[in-house]
Amino acid sequence: MPGPFRVKARVRMSETDAMGVVYYGQYYSYFDIARHEMLKDAGLGEHLGRGGSVGFVAAESSCRYRSSARFDDLLTLEVAVAKVGNSSVTYYNAVRKGKTLVAEGMVTDVLVDREGKPVKIPERVRAKLLGYGLPR
Amino acid sequence: MPGPFRVKARVRMSETDAMGVVYYGQYYSYFDIARHEMLKDAGLGEHLGRGGSVGFVAAESSCRYRSSARFDDLLTLEVAVAKVGNSSVTYYNAVRKGKTLVAEGMVTDVLVDREGKPVKIPERVRAKLLGYGLPR
Amino acid sequence: MPGPFRVKARVRMSETDAMGVVYYGQYYSYFDIARHEMLKDAGLGEHLGRGGSVGFVAAESSCRYRSSARFDDLLTLEVAVAKVGNSSVTYYNAVRKGKTLVAEGMVTDVLVDREGKPVKIPERVRAKLLGYGLPR
Amino acid sequence: MPGPFRVKARVRMSETDAMGVVYYGQYYSYFDIARHEMLKDAGLGEHLGRGGSVGFVAAESSCRYRSSARFDDLLTLEVAVAKVGNSSVTYYNAVRKGKTLVAEGMVTDVLVDREGKPVKIPERVRAKLLGYGLPR
Repeated sequence: MPGPFRVKARVRMSETDAMGVVYYGQYYSYFDIARHEMLKDAGLGEHLGRGGSVGFVAAESSCRYRSSARFDDLLTLEVAVAKVGNSSVTYYNAVRKGKTLVAEGMVTDVLVDREGKPVKIPERVRAKLLGYGLPR
Repeated sequence: MPGPFRVKARVRMSETDAMGVVYYGQYYSYFDIARHEMLKDAGLGEHLGRGGSVGFVAAESSCRYRSSARFDDLLTLEVAVAKVGNSSVTYYNAVRKGKTLVAEGMVTDVLVDREGKPVKIPERVRAKLLGYGLPR
Repeated sequence: MPGPFRVKARVRMSETDAMGVVYYGQYYSYFDIARHEMLKDAGLGEHLGRGGSVGFVAAESSCRYRSSARFDDLLTLEVAVAKVGNSSVTYYNAVRKGKTLVAEGMVTDVLVDREGKPVKIPERVRAKLLGYGLPR
Repeated sequence: MPGPFRVKARVRMSETDAMGVVYYGQYYSYFDIARHEMLKDAGLGEHLGRGGSVGFVAAESSCRYRSSARFDDLLTLEVAVAKVGNSSVTYYNAVRKGKTLVAEGMVTDVLVDREGKPVKIPERVRAKLLGYGLPR
């Protein structure tokens, strides 16, 4: 049963800014947490950029801010695979506070070799990623 | 003469990650630096979120990663006003290392009152922002 | 039974630097996490700087680096109250990876009023803090 | 003529927290900036951890917070060499806002080889470091 992956995270003081809320650039770090945990859950931890022969690097990112989060808020970080291309994967990310959508966005990663050249995503990896696909 | 605004920034160790390059989420902080300096240059520093009756908050952000930057690299942070809406401003941002485009992206801010309600951008502010418009 | 307080945290990519390990300044954010959770556990969450009439601000911090931590490592963040002064509290912090001590340090916070003037720590607060004292 | 080294830095929004001031752990990043620029000024840029056969790693850090800094403040980051040991260097750091001391602290780095083993500081390096010594 395909579906999104979720983890919890509590807002740290270092993640807020002088506007009193979570700094807008911090949401990309929240996206990371969910994506990394999802990849480990999928048995794809070896592609997290820890020195393998191939690894994922960021190609694009975006975020829409719907409401705000504050210090000590408990957030739900959700990620789902939106698209698997030839050498790229696009993830949909949502950050929620209870039922309230705080922010949502997309991250596209490209699988590259040690020289940074895009590499075809192996079928085994593709199949695992699609297991975390968005519900249709 | 309308045109983009530029500042320099040197990559700090704290801005890099274990991939050996600038952390992908860090580019949004680079976008900030250029935008804030531009707003001060425009005489709009009072809208930087420092306790005035109205201020800008982030509504959307996006970035495309074209190449990478490393510790101690000297970057040129460029910003231009792409669009001024009723209550929103969209900025185009580019990060360059010499002639090489490292990353580019958009940030849309909305002018809000103390309750977070969107507010019409005053004509005086709009005129100043358009002075930093993208060349046609 | 007095004793230290512990929470777990997994190293995020944004917390590492181009040396391949956790950035040395990041340990202070780890110290925060443990201290804040401890204060909430003690029922002192209202002193976390969220707009009460008094709150704790940092006066001193220090850290000794014993070994290093890497992306995705699971860390144990430990905190204990080392000393409660008239208006200050000194915390001992340790960051461990399994049995290995990664870093340890001290943070001294001062209780201040809205004007930033030091305030005597109430007996109720002092008693609760001493419940997390270092073992003798 | 021995003496401290100074650079300027403007407080970024991402460096502040919900207390409205610069996040206490951020000062270590300010210490870095001054130290790295000083080492480059000394012609010791090759020891900044960029892949040489030896490099400096942090052994200890500390900071005392004297006042606070806010978004957009212009800070003077000062660094001086307090002590050069057999394989370690201790730096004194000060962060000022105009004439006001905002924070001051120490960082001790150790020169290590690729395996992380402490290495004797070469005489050439020692002599250059002492050129940035604290005034007597």
